[in-house]
Amino acid sequence: MTGLEPRPLHAPRAASAGGPGLFVTFEGGDGAGKTTQASMLEEWLTGDGRTVVRTREPGGTEVGVRIREIVLHHRGHIAARAEALLYAADRAHHVETVVQPAIARGDVVIQDRYLDSSVAYQGAGRVLDPDDVRALSLWATGGLLPDLTVLLDLDPTAARQRLDADDKPFDRLEAEKNDFHARVREGFLALARREPDRFVVLDATQTPEVLAARVRDAVVARFR
Amino acid sequence: MTGLEPRPLHAPRAASAGGPGLFVTFEGGDGAGKTTQASMLEEWLTGDGRTVVRTREPGGTEVGVRIREIVLHHRGHIAARAEALLYAADRAHHVETVVQPAIARGDVVIQDRYLDSSVAYQGAGRVLDPDDVRALSLWATGGLLPDLTVLLDLDPTAARQRLDADDKPFDRLEAEKNDFHARVREGFLALARREPDRFVVLDATQTPEVLAARVRDAVVARFR
Repeated sequence: MTGLEPRPLHAPRAASAGGPGLFVTFEGGDGAGKTTQASMLEEWLTGDGRTVVRTREPGGTEVGVRIREIVLHHRGHIAARAEALLYAADRAHHVETVVQPAIARGDVVIQDRYLDSSVAYQGAGRVLDPDDVRALSLWATGGLLPDLTVLLDLDPTAARQRLDADDKPFDRLEAEKNDFHARVREGFLALARREPDRFVVLDATQTPEVLAARVRDAVVARFR
Repeated sequence: MTGLEPRPLHAPRAASAGGPGLFVTFEGGDGAGKTTQASMLEEWLTGDGRTVVRTREPGGTEVGVRIREIVLHHRGHIAARAEALLYAADRAHHVETVVQPAIARGDVVIQDRYLDSSVAYQGAGRVLDPDDVRALSLWATGGLLPDLTVLLDLDPTAARQRLDADDKPFDRLEAEKNDFHARVREGFLALARREPDRFVVLDATQTPEVLAARVRDAVVARFR
């Protein structure tokens, strides 16, 4: 029966196709400095007279907060596919009600984590096919991709040392966690290799000021 | 870039491939008599020594109840794609934790609404492509299709008269207009035409006893 064949969901398109604004996302592991760089970029753009919308996923809307509550705080097992679909639902609502309207108004959207995080983290979990996770997000967002994605790349051990005050030796569980975060890092780098025009990969061990200058250069290039 | 092309998600498979049990779903508009027929079938199967799992979507699990709460009772707009993804998330969790284990044990699962409802209702809303909605559900469930789907077909005006006789308040979906329900009905019938082996379409204006006998015949045929 022809109606039963699986079919592709949605082709991607760049955000700037959706309006005069700009859509910039920050990606990378925890501790890589995403929040610091997003704040520094926001300050610079605001000083330059731009209107900036700072947002995040999951949980950037009222509906998203309720979804985030289920994903992060439900006691007990959640099916892997259900979790992926909940993140995609949050993303669909967030893009339609926050990101797209801002781009249409001509604002700059600066967002902490987007579909690349879903692909890198869920892919590292080794349960779901990363390409499936990507296809879900593209369907959820009508194919919306950022104009610029800044990947703050950092060795997981260094990130851990930033997050921990003291650097005692890892136990078995921490070593497993470290292995997972190494896979997340590899996942991000693989995504960046696939889309070299969208991604700027920065060595996150550099000073915040040096990183901020590199981010500004990349944003300025996208405005032209 | 080859990695950016959209890709198919999952091919469907019949439930019986997942274990010795049977997966029966009831579909149709509200007021068509799904609950009555599900109860009569359950009673008959139980009397015949079968173990029956009666369940429903959305809300057949603890996670599902929380998702249902967002979808049906959130005050304010929910993006159409977010709503579809939330239903798919509920379905993914429900199939993995309730339906599949029951089929694997050899039980008969009798379920009120499944993926056909998503396709018919969301397709009737004219916002989403029904084939996309179907592809999402197939991904969510690993491609699980019922062995038998009973469609209780009823003219929406007749269904409305039945529901008005009851004294319960309408939820958000029930409050939609009559021509919407006419499109839902057409959607269900189109699905049944696409998969004549899985579907049995019954005229829901017949007496409950006549309908129950037709349902039993269809179930007995699937056991052989």
